[in-house]
Amino acid sequence: MHPFGQESPNTGMAGEKEILRLIQKHLDETSPPPPQGIGDDCATWMPPAGETVLLTTDPVIFGRHFDASHEPEHVGAKLLKRNLSDIAAMGGHPGPAILALAMGPDVQLEWLTRFVDGLAATCTTYNIPLAGGDIASSEPGIFIATLSQTGSAPNPVTRVGALDGSPILVTGTLGGSLMGRHFHFEPRLAEGQWLAIQEEVLSMTDISDGLAKDLPGLLPAGMQAILDIASLPIDGAVQATGANAIAQALCDGEDYELLFSLDPQTDLNAFLEAWPFETNLCPIGSVCRGEPAGILVDKNTGNRIQYRNGYEHFKTTD
Amino acid sequence: MHPFGQESPNTGMAGEKEILRLIQKHLDETSPPPPQGIGDDCATWMPPAGETVLLTTDPVIFGRHFDASHEPEHVGAKLLKRNLSDIAAMGGHPGPAILALAMGPDVQLEWLTRFVDGLAATCTTYNIPLAGGDIASSEPGIFIATLSQTGSAPNPVTRVGALDGSPILVTGTLGGSLMGRHFHFEPRLAEGQWLAIQEEVLSMTDISDGLAKDLPGLLPAGMQAILDIASLPIDGAVQATGANAIAQALCDGEDYELLFSLDPQTDLNAFLEAWPFETNLCPIGSVCRGEPAGILVDKNTGNRIQYRNGYEHFKTTD
Repeated sequence: MHPFGQESPNTGMAGEKEILRLIQKHLDETSPPPPQGIGDDCATWMPPAGETVLLTTDPVIFGRHFDASHEPEHVGAKLLKRNLSDIAAMGGHPGPAILALAMGPDVQLEWLTRFVDGLAATCTTYNIPLAGGDIASSEPGIFIATLSQTGSAPNPVTRVGALDGSPILVTGTLGGSLMGRHFHFEPRLAEGQWLAIQEEVLSMTDISDGLAKDLPGLLPAGMQAILDIASLPIDGAVQATGANAIAQALCDGEDYELLFSLDPQTDLNAFLEAWPFETNLCPIGSVCRGEPAGILVDKNTGNRIQYRNGYEHFKTTD
Repeated sequence: MHPFGQESPNTGMAGEKEILRLIQKHLDETSPPPPQGIGDDCATWMPPAGETVLLTTDPVIFGRHFDASHEPEHVGAKLLKRNLSDIAAMGGHPGPAILALAMGPDVQLEWLTRFVDGLAATCTTYNIPLAGGDIASSEPGIFIATLSQTGSAPNPVTRVGALDGSPILVTGTLGGSLMGRHFHFEPRLAEGQWLAIQEEVLSMTDISDGLAKDLPGLLPAGMQAILDIASLPIDGAVQATGANAIAQALCDGEDYELLFSLDPQTDLNAFLEAWPFETNLCPIGSVCRGEPAGILVDKNTGNRIQYRNGYEHFKTTD
């Protein structure tokens, strides 16, 4: 259904109190009583003793992250899952979430209700308390939902730490987000938490902008990534072959898979053997000293992997 | 200056990376290195051991919270201060903040820069690390900045706890927000922290919607607030007298003062004597069992205080 409409009951007709009541009703048991949940000046949270608190925020915006062709429940679910992927990327356990809505008076109440239903169901799946938030009116045609997600980790894994010779691995599969996978992914929370307690794991991130853009973020100064392109775990949703399939796996983004580096001394076979999840785990290359730094190099040809951002062209040249 | 423009350099011409660079440059030392600050999947924060974490979020939206007549620095400052007022209302110490921007391509870079300067200066004043965030594009004419603020408190003061006979007190002065005071307020952090360690303090909130709307939030079931209207600390910015001045003090909102209840056994004179701040502190009434519950009653006449929300009419009738 379309998020906006003049005829059906919409938020402009409802008023803020009625909207809040509707949201709280549909959040149901994912919304704890105050002060842990909605209803006081702040939400309160007691993170596990001695752990580091993690903070991240990501929105879903009509016209940018979704449109009228998407199910509102999927939009609500994606809002939470993309934030949880950031918590997973640090090896964290998620804590409470805070929701800020800015929306035009023409947002349909039914659309909003289904959005909240999707968010609430996903909160239940991952055991996330929706602890508070804000509702504000904006211009007609605007729907912006911003979620701030907390988490905690005994030892957060940052993007810094890869060494010369570090193997690079990725969970799951890459590509296919433009074929709808960007709504149907699982934040790799359990995998991230397990990786965070393996001493071989040196650094980690999640793939949101695409392997080609996110992998350089793991490279220390003076280092390149040597990629075995043939080994890339290309998703079954990718409807292309050869260079076009690789381009999608490298550039489409929104894979929400974990990308991490290991200590160069790691027994890779033993590490793969110890992996306790059904989720695919795939070595795709390694970190190597080289100039120019910060680039991706094709292991077979030794050529720099050229690409453009996102939806655009991909080619390998020297 | 006006936030939006086609001619001057604007965000649509700049691209996301340039905007991020500009923001980081102007945040300067309020933006710590990752992972405490911008640059990893999450920001990390170690709250004081054993303390409860506080979470709140509030936006500033063009057309709702500000317009082209307001200085961009004041808008940036207000964004942080209104969130800090929520931390103060729980008696908390502020931790890191996270910023999510959604804005049209026509936002002028100079306006944005001045907004960030105001935010950064206020971060410096209150020693708040700006730890992370998100930048997203929206429709032309849209500027929505959503800040999520963390805090911590050994013993957060909630809105719940007032008793039959509890004195009600308020910090500072009331009214005048429509005369510009809503940009020029101090979040009562030190006052809130002090109040949180006085055992006489039973419950607390901040006044954002106006005393008339926020005071009922402190009333337990079956209780009324008996107000000594003559004692209300009316701000010098209120350009009205009599009932009109009282209406502004009760209804305009955005006072960002602390409103709290004390144990009925409190020696009120001794409590006022012990108050260590220059900030005004004023007893304005007390909690009392009565029907109908949840209302405000004029101490002198015994009549219910009638009011309408916000900018509207105020009268006392029975």
